[in-house]
Amino acid sequence: MPAPIDFYFDFSSPYGFLASEKIEALAARHGRDVSWRPMLLGVVFKQTGAAPLTQIPLKGEYSRRDMARSARFHGIDGFRMPSTFPIATQAPARIVLWLQIKDPSMASKVVHAQYRAFFVDDIDISNPDNAASVAARCGVDAAAARAAIDDLEIKDALKKSNEQAIAAGAFGSPFIVVDGEPFWGMDRLDQVDRWLETGGW
Amino acid sequence: MPAPIDFYFDFSSPYGFLASEKIEALAARHGRDVSWRPMLLGVVFKQTGAAPLTQIPLKGEYSRRDMARSARFHGIDGFRMPSTFPIATQAPARIVLWLQIKDPSMASKVVHAQYRAFFVDDIDISNPDNAASVAARCGVDAAAARAAIDDLEIKDALKKSNEQAIAAGAFGSPFIVVDGEPFWGMDRLDQVDRWLETGGW
Repeated sequence: MPAPIDFYFDFSSPYGFLASEKIEALAARHGRDVSWRPMLLGVVFKQTGAAPLTQIPLKGEYSRRDMARSARFHGIDGFRMPSTFPIATQAPARIVLWLQIKDPSMASKVVHAQYRAFFVDDIDISNPDNAASVAARCGVDAAAARAAIDDLEIKDALKKSNEQAIAAGAFGSPFIVVDGEPFWGMDRLDQVDRWLETGGW
Repeated sequence: MPAPIDFYFDFSSPYGFLASEKIEALAARHGRDVSWRPMLLGVVFKQTGAAPLTQIPLKGEYSRRDMARSARFHGIDGFRMPSTFPIATQAPARIVLWLQIKDPSMASKVVHAQYRAFFVDDIDISNPDNAASVAARCGVDAAAARAAIDDLEIKDALKKSNEQAIAAGAFGSPFIVVDGEPFWGMDRLDQVDRWLETGGW
């Protein structure tokens, strides 16, 4: 099987959520897996001086409208902006990184559960207990997931994941790398699809 | 005929150029005209604190790659980043606004000629003589076009055009408004197309 697609994302990223709902089916059409690579946009934004999209004058107002409209356009049900936004996403990111070591088969399921908890059910997954509960709904041991959030080895794994994201050139979420070619944003899924089909142009 | 599509753009915007090559055919499929609305991104960026895309760390490097890749993806031949970029675009913007008063039938042709001069032929259209020469290639009187750039009434028309852009919520280029609904970016042409087809979703 060819190399997986790298999907760099922050759990607080609305366009990351929308793309996460589409990327696996897209990858599967081309015989690829998805490598989920959680990162913290706050760390990345220090490199670029960027601010959270929704906090920028004019652009913020537009982006809220566009996020909801894009969700409907792409047939992603239930999207709504969370009542607290943006949030810190260490807790869900660490749970995913922990699962990738301990039980990789669960990672994808938990990525989707965390994202949907935040963007559909308005659960504040920045809260470690909430993030552990969401993982538990997928069949993960809640106490072990909760402990992983405070585990020094897992904390270190998230630091490394951020460093890898920056090294890959990620400056936003989602940031998708296919065989070394970078694509930023939900908007580029059409190009990702053609790149997988043709190997480039 | 229903209302035209408002196409807000800066002549120094690569994604504005790419979208300008597609928007008229898209509009025509739905029986619409395009209202070309030149603006100055520098004025708009003061509202949002934004910087030119290519000057942002990480994002700048990616965007240059993405612009060329997106041009090829959309079948737009000859695109290359100009040797001087970004540029001030008062000269071509004023020529277009002057034509919209004096000879509206020429405006669209001159928009395309200015954009292609800059992004395909690497002509610095910030230079008033160059911008007038490009217009002349379309059959416009060169001396009159050159004079229009320094005409106080036309200067005022550009100020008003910027104000209208900001009032419409434009914070980037291209910014497309269809029956009051705003769409930012070349990336949203698919949504513009469906919006024109369905009236919204």
